[in-house]
Amino acid sequence: MNKNNYCVIMAGGIGARFWPMSRTTRPKQFIDILGTGETLIQRTFRRFERICPKENIYIVTNEIYANQVKHQLPHLPVNNILLEPAMRNTAPCIAYANYKILSVNPEANIVVAPSDHLIMDEDLFADNINVALKFAAENPWLITLGIRPTRPDTGYGYIQFDETIIDTNSHHLRKVKTFTEKPNHELAEKFIASGDFLWNAGIFIWSLKTITEAFEEYLDDINDLFKEGIGLYNTDSEKAFINDIYAGCRKISIDYGIMEKATNVYVLSADFDWSDLGTWGSLYDTRQKDENNNAVVGDDVMLYDTNNCLVNMPKGKLVVLQGLDDYIVVEEDNALLICRKNDEQEIRKFVSDIKAKKGEKFI
Amino acid sequence: MNKNNYCVIMAGGIGARFWPMSRTTRPKQFIDILGTGETLIQRTFRRFERICPKENIYIVTNEIYANQVKHQLPHLPVNNILLEPAMRNTAPCIAYANYKILSVNPEANIVVAPSDHLIMDEDLFADNINVALKFAAENPWLITLGIRPTRPDTGYGYIQFDETIIDTNSHHLRKVKTFTEKPNHELAEKFIASGDFLWNAGIFIWSLKTITEAFEEYLDDINDLFKEGIGLYNTDSEKAFINDIYAGCRKISIDYGIMEKATNVYVLSADFDWSDLGTWGSLYDTRQKDENNNAVVGDDVMLYDTNNCLVNMPKGKLVVLQGLDDYIVVEEDNALLICRKNDEQEIRKFVSDIKAKKGEKFI
Repeated sequence: MNKNNYCVIMAGGIGARFWPMSRTTRPKQFIDILGTGETLIQRTFRRFERICPKENIYIVTNEIYANQVKHQLPHLPVNNILLEPAMRNTAPCIAYANYKILSVNPEANIVVAPSDHLIMDEDLFADNINVALKFAAENPWLITLGIRPTRPDTGYGYIQFDETIIDTNSHHLRKVKTFTEKPNHELAEKFIASGDFLWNAGIFIWSLKTITEAFEEYLDDINDLFKEGIGLYNTDSEKAFINDIYAGCRKISIDYGIMEKATNVYVLSADFDWSDLGTWGSLYDTRQKDENNNAVVGDDVMLYDTNNCLVNMPKGKLVVLQGLDDYIVVEEDNALLICRKNDEQEIRKFVSDIKAKKGEKFI
Repeated sequence: MNKNNYCVIMAGGIGARFWPMSRTTRPKQFIDILGTGETLIQRTFRRFERICPKENIYIVTNEIYANQVKHQLPHLPVNNILLEPAMRNTAPCIAYANYKILSVNPEANIVVAPSDHLIMDEDLFADNINVALKFAAENPWLITLGIRPTRPDTGYGYIQFDETIIDTNSHHLRKVKTFTEKPNHELAEKFIASGDFLWNAGIFIWSLKTITEAFEEYLDDINDLFKEGIGLYNTDSEKAFINDIYAGCRKISIDYGIMEKATNVYVLSADFDWSDLGTWGSLYDTRQKDENNNAVVGDDVMLYDTNNCLVNMPKGKLVVLQGLDDYIVVEEDNALLICRKNDEQEIRKFVSDIKAKKGEKFI
């Protein structure tokens, strides 16, 4: 394992679309949403333990989740948990990690990845990431991972590439032409048909030197805020310094702030299956189904004349479902949701109604 | 209140069709299925407290429900709880009550009624029962209450009457011509159209003398078994005697054993609304509905695009239902049922499958 390789796992999301399983106090990344016995952040951490020493893995999360991270990742050094006092999107979170890592290793090569995506083939994942890290170590490139699209999904970001620069061992690294966030259906179909678009997986690979230069060029205000703290990172003063500056950061994503503007952006075609697990529907797609296309988690669920449903029930709860087609049926922590799968975008509205009518108790 | 008036409440039923609210250990009569704050047996007991002294009210139930009766009816004298060691249908249960009452008052006039039916207008009920008791005290008649049918229900028994013998103060007492159990739909429609059929409410009124003569004529074997115990009722030996003979009784209903055969059977048209609450659908019919025809019990139930549903949720449980039409959604004691209202006859099958797969735990 290359000791210059580092990993930054972003774990600050709230995941309201997975209500009632996800709650403000326990968002998606901290849930065993796949029913595998591991939470998503545990799976993500384990994937990166194969790529770099665990001392080189950093988790950036909101300070309200500090205890959940410690509890779920007991082998992670406590000093590697970066606590954000406010939600400021991905660019400030990455700038913070950059300076934290700079204080221990200026030669670092870094993978930045979300904590709550689904990746099943861990061998292919490790292989792809290692290839990208090698490219990033040797070239001043900002590399993003692109997933071959399998359907005109309107919930994803798309990356258009223009020319293949490296194509060996079936690894295709290409220069990025454009980024497009969440296209409409017609446009998404055109993207797929053209053959030169990939989904943006939100996984970035670069050297500390290259990303720092990009911050200096495109997000200098944010970079300056964190640069002021040189000498304080990894000391007792770090927390007070971060609490002091964080609220003053602009809210901006790394995609919008740097990736869409920089000219040294490359995309590596990923070989592994991937889902951002953004909705119950995407979870349904990844799950094993029974003979009636039902994806069921729960040991005491009995189905009659029920098809195409996603069912998630707590252990020990007896559930009899009859006559349902294409529904989400989920219970967690004393809250039950039954909703047509096609109407799952309504869940955000339900959560907002619950907040208005019942307060914070159930959300 | 006439001190010769007695009431026998039959509370031995199991109510499997109301799963998961009703369980073997807690059948329908012991549940607040209407969400009114009182269980059905408490409501029934209260209705009869207006008709006779509570010392004259007897409950016949299975011995496994003894504690529930004591707990739910703390004002009922414990000696008035008749415990059946086995289920033997209604005739043995009535014979037992007859001899129990004979030992304290041979002049008794008796109302026999189920514990788990719905009657909302308690004034009309008391009025009808008092009229029938007066008839029964003065005449050697077996009187049953008939409900004016409002739809061709195939789940009820029908009573055909032939001639009006008493018609004063809008009380119509008529001689019964035939009893018909659960007709098919076509026949039920004919019954309704003919105008000379009533639903059999299973509420009987007679004097102790008249019903004992009927037992002697039509169910002499059962009568003889209980007659042997004269001198033991209301003594310490009663329980052992009953345990000794009960299993040996034939299983037979009072309808089939006596009412369908006797020639002195009369029906009093009831004025009150009534439902046997035999199914979730019949409970739905009696409930108040919201503007989308949903009948909801539960303080934290939020409905979106949901119509014609019956929803029963435990207190404190948050439930969001979207996109359901004509469903039963019921949770009780860690078991959830979702079932099309039109398919509710399947519930018996679910309960039998649960018993086969999971044992007695959930039923």
